[in-house]
Amino acid sequence: MQASSSVSQVRIALGERTYPILIGAGLLADPGSYQAAPSGGDALIVTNTTVAPLYAERLARALAGRHRQVHQVALPDGEQHKHWETLNRIFDVLLGHGADRKTVLYALGGGVVGDMTGFAAACYMRGVPFVQVPTTLLAQVDSSVGGKTAINHPLGKNMIGAFYQPRLVLCDLDVLASLPARELSAGLAEVIKYGPIADMAFFDWIEANVDALRACDRDALAHAVERSCQIKAEVVGQDERESGLRAILNFGHTFGHAIEAGLGYGAWLHGEAVGAGMVMAAQLSHALGLVDAAFVQRLTALIARAGLPTRGAVLDAHDNAGRYLQLMRLDKKAEGGEIRFVVIDGPGRAAVRAAPDALVRQVIERCCR
Amino acid sequence: MQASSSVSQVRIALGERTYPILIGAGLLADPGSYQAAPSGGDALIVTNTTVAPLYAERLARALAGRHRQVHQVALPDGEQHKHWETLNRIFDVLLGHGADRKTVLYALGGGVVGDMTGFAAACYMRGVPFVQVPTTLLAQVDSSVGGKTAINHPLGKNMIGAFYQPRLVLCDLDVLASLPARELSAGLAEVIKYGPIADMAFFDWIEANVDALRACDRDALAHAVERSCQIKAEVVGQDERESGLRAILNFGHTFGHAIEAGLGYGAWLHGEAVGAGMVMAAQLSHALGLVDAAFVQRLTALIARAGLPTRGAVLDAHDNAGRYLQLMRLDKKAEGGEIRFVVIDGPGRAAVRAAPDALVRQVIERCCR
Repeated sequence: MQASSSVSQVRIALGERTYPILIGAGLLADPGSYQAAPSGGDALIVTNTTVAPLYAERLARALAGRHRQVHQVALPDGEQHKHWETLNRIFDVLLGHGADRKTVLYALGGGVVGDMTGFAAACYMRGVPFVQVPTTLLAQVDSSVGGKTAINHPLGKNMIGAFYQPRLVLCDLDVLASLPARELSAGLAEVIKYGPIADMAFFDWIEANVDALRACDRDALAHAVERSCQIKAEVVGQDERESGLRAILNFGHTFGHAIEAGLGYGAWLHGEAVGAGMVMAAQLSHALGLVDAAFVQRLTALIARAGLPTRGAVLDAHDNAGRYLQLMRLDKKAEGGEIRFVVIDGPGRAAVRAAPDALVRQVIERCCR
Repeated sequence: MQASSSVSQVRIALGERTYPILIGAGLLADPGSYQAAPSGGDALIVTNTTVAPLYAERLARALAGRHRQVHQVALPDGEQHKHWETLNRIFDVLLGHGADRKTVLYALGGGVVGDMTGFAAACYMRGVPFVQVPTTLLAQVDSSVGGKTAINHPLGKNMIGAFYQPRLVLCDLDVLASLPARELSAGLAEVIKYGPIADMAFFDWIEANVDALRACDRDALAHAVERSCQIKAEVVGQDERESGLRAILNFGHTFGHAIEAGLGYGAWLHGEAVGAGMVMAAQLSHALGLVDAAFVQRLTALIARAGLPTRGAVLDAHDNAGRYLQLMRLDKKAEGGEIRFVVIDGPGRAAVRAAPDALVRQVIERCCR
């Protein structure tokens, strides 16, 4: 890989909560990258035990001139730790240092670290500023952008959280080189997602570049991250609190969340569950007469080429479809027990709608291994 | 007491988050009182084990025509339960019922119930609507109005929370008749507060009517609640998220929170700690040359007549002032370890400022029993 000096910027336009996403190489260690974030008070770097040895010191050095003191806390790694007890460790550290309202939290890690750090920032003293420094592809193209923060509850994923925007998102492409192949693939699920819901030209581009992306080609990653963030920025700018449009970003997630919850968080990576979930959602769209079989086949093939599962997990040997339905009724988009599915209403356009249980059952039976 | 048909209304003007406070007799049981709140979905009444037998069924009946189902949960009573484990019981009940984003939470109780219900509403699925039905004087004149929600952390009061506005606040004056005298006095602390910080004519009125208020005179209570809410509405409307002005509503609270935290939450009622805290803050204002001794004496006398303590608790036999200072440095208004005190800058006007440790120590030594 070559060093690149080009930095691109995507703006999330939300009035007084507007903030930039910076995308480029070598950003993390450069003190100049953090201009958009508040300075002066203390900083707390929240990371996990996997990422800490790789990048925490580098980030701490970059922040040293901007903050009075820079503290760190490394949480246990993994979706299974995304719950209250882990969140509370952040509060313990903040209060142990006497951190005040001027303290800035830095989320250094993947989606789990970002979700928990953002929610901690939303709640600590009723709100302190935070910055996202995502270290996984999935976090760079999706979870670090848009202000959704949350922890899981034993009865549902992301059930306890807040809409709370960061002051800055810093996508350093260099850090993706340290990602295991499985994590890179998981991130590609969220990249692929943007094609069917919003931009089939981007989908064409991903088809042509999926091998380069899996090989961690810097230029390919730069384009994938930038275009993904642009699409997400446009959707979030129109519907920050998911009262309508924003729900389309959850294409594949209704089925995917059922897989994650049904197997126990962490058994499959989030992106893996979304991969299989997108196939199921596409099959449902087809069953509803919204897309043809060729589209479903094309999407399924790309998900497979990205190294992702294309079949759902069996969650219950006796009544698998029933178990999926039970779990999906807890989805946050559900209303009055009616599941709201994100479907593809023709390639490049998504919609949210209900579907008959019998049809959903057929799709689940067909799509699970 | 006579039934009164007059209902007064105070508006909290916050753009799209604007909502009404209704003040009057017999409101709780009247289905017509709830027009400003969303209807249609499920409702969850969150209350405590003391209030539930008195009012929960009456509220449930009033809501029956507005919601598909009305659920209830009764939390343990008291500030010492205002923590994560109790909050999580609300989430358990919501998820156990499969409650969706259209679910409306009703906080039926005092400040603790209101703070926890509001915070639960702020976090559940990243935000569902809630309504305040305060059953204590303190909650009617202060905590239910303005959208501050929180739980306590072992290292500090209200450290984990959100600014999250209710859709409606319903102050039923009849319920105050069931309040123990000690709770009524605690509520008067927050009523008295509005005088020195904003309106000395109201202070004169309280001096003239404190006995009627303690005797639960309906007309006196109606005026006290309405004027308190008006002043609070004006302040909150100008500074929802406490970036400046709103901090004046915490007159007496910096010292008061130290008493509550130092003795363990629940030993003193919040209003009792605020009573003694106001005397200490007035003494500090005098020591800073901002008010004369006569004003301090007048405020102290009224606090005593309201049935409240006028001297702070001894938190540490060896270094009492040191312990107060240590606890106050954790106050949310503190910046960089510097405590920001709400002082009276002439009767009827408050300001927020720092003070020399030596001076604060003298005040604490003088004011504690």
